[in-house]
Amino acid sequence: MKDSTNNNTLLTKNIITRLAKYLRILKSLKSIGLIKVFSSNLGDAAGIAPTVVRKDFSILGINGNKKGGYIIDNLIKQIEGLLGIEDEYKAIIVGCGRIGKALIESEELKREHIHIIAGFDLTPSEPLNNVPIYTTDKMEEIVKKENIKIGIISVPNHAAIKVFEHMREAGIRGFLNFTSVDIKCGDKCPVGCEHKCVINQVNIGLELENLFHLVHITEKHPDLLIE
Amino acid sequence: MKDSTNNNTLLTKNIITRLAKYLRILKSLKSIGLIKVFSSNLGDAAGIAPTVVRKDFSILGINGNKKGGYIIDNLIKQIEGLLGIEDEYKAIIVGCGRIGKALIESEELKREHIHIIAGFDLTPSEPLNNVPIYTTDKMEEIVKKENIKIGIISVPNHAAIKVFEHMREAGIRGFLNFTSVDIKCGDKCPVGCEHKCVINQVNIGLELENLFHLVHITEKHPDLLIE
Repeated sequence: MKDSTNNNTLLTKNIITRLAKYLRILKSLKSIGLIKVFSSNLGDAAGIAPTVVRKDFSILGINGNKKGGYIIDNLIKQIEGLLGIEDEYKAIIVGCGRIGKALIESEELKREHIHIIAGFDLTPSEPLNNVPIYTTDKMEEIVKKENIKIGIISVPNHAAIKVFEHMREAGIRGFLNFTSVDIKCGDKCPVGCEHKCVINQVNIGLELENLFHLVHITEKHPDLLIE
Repeated sequence: MKDSTNNNTLLTKNIITRLAKYLRILKSLKSIGLIKVFSSNLGDAAGIAPTVVRKDFSILGINGNKKGGYIIDNLIKQIEGLLGIEDEYKAIIVGCGRIGKALIESEELKREHIHIIAGFDLTPSEPLNNVPIYTTDKMEEIVKKENIKIGIISVPNHAAIKVFEHMREAGIRGFLNFTSVDIKCGDKCPVGCEHKCVINQVNIGLELENLFHLVHITEKHPDLLIE
């Protein structure tokens, strides 16, 4: 990967999400028997402009052939090499209230090959759908034993930072934050840690507020275009 | 608003989210007694570059004074005029499974002034936290009576499109989609409707998958910078 990519490449979350999308489409095309694909076909299937598709691939050091397009097998190999595809993605949940329990019991997540291997809470509790619920003092042991890197934070807001720090201490590096606390790490890390943590936030209140504003603007100010 | 804004302005969801963020900060500054603010102060508080702050305000037709900054009261008035601020945001939920119930019972949403006024499901059910759960055939009546524009879709994937169309028919214009179905409306609307619907998606599976990739890349390809 190092040889074919630019050392100064700036990968973003959006590019990675798009690459994962291309990968799903490429695998479907391969299963149908296709060998080559054009950026315009991939763009159509992904709902993305072909110029963006070509730019994303050039980041991987992959250049298509104007007449022949891209070789599907090469694209799949390159993207998988970068994204680190696994058969099953393992994660833990800290905070087993209503949202935490809903996620542990989610059939949709299982279908998407996401396996919540344990829940953690302040108080001990019975397993949910065969997923054990431990007290938080067991976190380090379980995370290390199962080599888990990904964790969901679904605790009340007031506990968010403390739980984040505990999870990071235990070895978690990727966080899905369901609280409305804007947790920062890395350069902006409040405790100055050296770990490069990645934090994605799902702020349902903010998403709903954004919707109210968008609908209001669409109705009252139709001259202000929204893309 | 029309007089002070550019008719060709392209507002995006991200700009609107930032404006809502500035608004919260401006109100806090006002409550402390401040009258004026510089873009750099607002940028610091919001974690956003001052050039972006100035660009966002110029979209509203607001220009600061290099020496004096912006007048806080004017900013608040202009942003509220655009975003359509209300004391309480009302919404419905369709699909009262685990996620739907968790949202209806969420104390965090209440604290953020979001009031789920009703839930809808295929089968009748007892009220949850005083929120009535109706069968879906009551949707149009309740939505019209309460003048609701915002709805949450938390049904299984296979029911997503049908439920979306039913909600749109009932008068919902802003959708928070918790399924992993990529629902399109507007120009890409499969049934060619004229309503300008806005659809925000919360795809938890995709968010988690994205985290796995980000952590993998951060560990294995530290030369590929991620912003």
